[in-house]
Amino acid sequence: MYVHLPKITIMKFLLPLLLLFSFTNTKAQADSTFIRNIYNQALENGEAYENLRSLCKDIGARVTGSAEAEMAVKWGEKLLKSYHFDKVYLQEIQVPHWERGTTEAAWIENEKGDILKLNILALGGSVGTNGLISGELIEVKNVEALKLLSTDKIKDKIVFLSEAFNQKHINTFQAYGGCYPLRGNGANEASKLGAKAIVIRSLATPNDNYPHTGSTHFDDNVTKIPAAAMSTQNADEVSKWLKQGKVTLKMEMDCKTFPDVTSYNVIAEITGKDNKIITIGGHLDSWDVGEGAHDDGAGIVHSIEALRILKTLNYKPNHTIRCVLFMNEENGNLGGKSYAKLAKEANEEHVCAIESDRGGFLPIGFDVVENKNYLEIVLKHKELLADYDLLKFKNGYGGVDIGPLKEYYPDMMQLGMAINSQAYFNYHHSAADVFETVNKRELELGAAAMATMVYLMDESLK
Amino acid sequence: MYVHLPKITIMKFLLPLLLLFSFTNTKAQADSTFIRNIYNQALENGEAYENLRSLCKDIGARVTGSAEAEMAVKWGEKLLKSYHFDKVYLQEIQVPHWERGTTEAAWIENEKGDILKLNILALGGSVGTNGLISGELIEVKNVEALKLLSTDKIKDKIVFLSEAFNQKHINTFQAYGGCYPLRGNGANEASKLGAKAIVIRSLATPNDNYPHTGSTHFDDNVTKIPAAAMSTQNADEVSKWLKQGKVTLKMEMDCKTFPDVTSYNVIAEITGKDNKIITIGGHLDSWDVGEGAHDDGAGIVHSIEALRILKTLNYKPNHTIRCVLFMNEENGNLGGKSYAKLAKEANEEHVCAIESDRGGFLPIGFDVVENKNYLEIVLKHKELLADYDLLKFKNGYGGVDIGPLKEYYPDMMQLGMAINSQAYFNYHHSAADVFETVNKRELELGAAAMATMVYLMDESLK
Repeated sequence: MYVHLPKITIMKFLLPLLLLFSFTNTKAQADSTFIRNIYNQALENGEAYENLRSLCKDIGARVTGSAEAEMAVKWGEKLLKSYHFDKVYLQEIQVPHWERGTTEAAWIENEKGDILKLNILALGGSVGTNGLISGELIEVKNVEALKLLSTDKIKDKIVFLSEAFNQKHINTFQAYGGCYPLRGNGANEASKLGAKAIVIRSLATPNDNYPHTGSTHFDDNVTKIPAAAMSTQNADEVSKWLKQGKVTLKMEMDCKTFPDVTSYNVIAEITGKDNKIITIGGHLDSWDVGEGAHDDGAGIVHSIEALRILKTLNYKPNHTIRCVLFMNEENGNLGGKSYAKLAKEANEEHVCAIESDRGGFLPIGFDVVENKNYLEIVLKHKELLADYDLLKFKNGYGGVDIGPLKEYYPDMMQLGMAINSQAYFNYHHSAADVFETVNKRELELGAAAMATMVYLMDESLK
Repeated sequence: MYVHLPKITIMKFLLPLLLLFSFTNTKAQADSTFIRNIYNQALENGEAYENLRSLCKDIGARVTGSAEAEMAVKWGEKLLKSYHFDKVYLQEIQVPHWERGTTEAAWIENEKGDILKLNILALGGSVGTNGLISGELIEVKNVEALKLLSTDKIKDKIVFLSEAFNQKHINTFQAYGGCYPLRGNGANEASKLGAKAIVIRSLATPNDNYPHTGSTHFDDNVTKIPAAAMSTQNADEVSKWLKQGKVTLKMEMDCKTFPDVTSYNVIAEITGKDNKIITIGGHLDSWDVGEGAHDDGAGIVHSIEALRILKTLNYKPNHTIRCVLFMNEENGNLGGKSYAKLAKEANEEHVCAIESDRGGFLPIGFDVVENKNYLEIVLKHKELLADYDLLKFKNGYGGVDIGPLKEYYPDMMQLGMAINSQAYFNYHHSAADVFETVNKRELELGAAAMATMVYLMDESLK
């Protein structure tokens, strides 16, 4: 069908389309060039790796409330100031203060008098043993199975929760999630049944001799009992001994909880053209063993480096880009909770938050917290992102630190950087989590991925 | 518009569609279940990691022509026989025999008499120095720049090719490709200009003190000269010295080439229903330092494990699945070349070949050698593969070992497993390429990815 239209009418239809097409094209090209510049900056002039070396080696482990955690606050503030961002400031918060103490030892004994020394770490929040304690060891697979037992089976015994990671999961965070109750709730449930103490198989992927700590929780009305994790190799061995007869566990730990102390979230900003805020961050505290390299030194230097790169490239954001080094993710999340509450009290407008807390390994994409059409918005850029091997974009989890913002800003976008998870639980919360296990380029690619996503969302979100 | 059709007519149209739909659905479901079983087998009952430990620790480095390479042939044959595949046999080939010898040392001296010892490795194919040699060191960036120089500038000098990896590439194989001529052709070109010897900056990603070897090539009419690689840290230091004045390099190496020897490709098969063949493989030889863990112990155990898993799951393939442990990929590719030639001479019909020779890191997808509609055939399965984080499917490179098949079978499909490349050139061809740098789960995922692709292509290709 041919319809004659006067020229003016053709122009009326075509011109906006042509303009739109040329604008879209130019915008895509500008995005592509800018993202290439982000990656060049990260890979050729990157500072993430040396910053991580400094955090790991000049300070090291930095559990909330410790002197090292306060050093980390000073470290972060000084580093952020050195980059001359528009604002750098501390946000005061109250945090718990738990310490491991100086004594931590355990062994098992069978009826023949054979002994086996165990490699243990007290769980964060555990009480000490007040000298050497001793009790018959009762193996229970997990918290579900424990809840089915009666008090007479458990009273005055020491419970051993022994469930191993399910290796069939492709993403190791799913295996971690499956075993999480052992550590998070095992001591609480064992105490309700009168147990004297609890030991768990470490929440870890490999078969090796590192124990992995992490926080354990007690309900308000439950008596706190000593709780520790043993290495996966020890756990296998203990199970073998238990199959052969009665086993006694002896344990001494002098960990304890001190009064709350004042600490800080460390914050830097590049001021935007409007009053809206995009938050990026990871957590500055770590556990008190190893160097907190992957958990979450990597997230800290990813976030700082993303902001540094955007500033270096002279990017003028639409929204304020705020980098937050959260305190106390590991045992209380008071950094994340306080940040959200203070944001709301200050009537801030938050449109997006992006967290990196899954290690310094190869970034593979982003999880988008299911909300509105946010996954669609991210997927609009999938061709650009595929050039950098960022290929996985799904509805999923954001992060612990940014999570509390959702309560006050239910409409905001939240993203969690998706990172190759295969080796994460070899290191997580253990003495093995050190700088040497981080690959320089993988860390740099993580920083570039974060800067890229900040840029794209700053341009996409109104 | 409503048109009345008699029932029989509706059925005539709908039934084939319904059957097709239900067949497609059932097939997709069966594929999904089978692939899940492959991954379960690899992750829960996998043997790839312990097989790699054995190859690395019981034998170790295994350069073509060496006693260790022959041990590796025995090792492979015995392991494949232990799995009771339908056929296990050796394919005799003639291969070169180059040895490093016992002396390998170099240092630089400036005019003040300062010296710096260099960490070097002779390049494979290099001749020895016949005692200590000495020459003025001339830095040239790369082979292109070298070719522009005249004989009087180079004659009797020692050439230092110093180009570093371009860190901007996302895939480090591209950086390697860019610097490859330094090692592959540098000595040849320097010799044409009368150079006494050549030293190169190692083809490596990181800034560290490991030299990385690899083969160098001389044209038939070119005098062979000594050629060695120094660590990247040494290369940076040498460049600094050269900026300050004249530098002399002294070097002694007694590497040499012996007469060719007989060796073998090691082969196992699961017999198919027809006469067509799918080849999977990696290379059994390695360089003579380290343990050849990533290059290419990983490819060897990926391929063996893929075949083991298919047999364990009682898979009855349409085509014969043939696992080939290729000899001599590193310095001659006579395993690959002979395999292809012998296949053609035996009138075999080859439909597909899949190679793993990019390390034991996280698999991310497959490169499809551009040919016919093969990329499309692979992409038909992208949803199934995405469940296992296999997300990257592009036209690209297959592999060195399977490459020669193309000459005789131009229509066949060739795939190279795409693997996270970020750390590969930290280890490649160096003493750092040891078992401990391989993550168990990443290795297992590689084996599962290979088995999955074999299964899908066996079902897809006629």
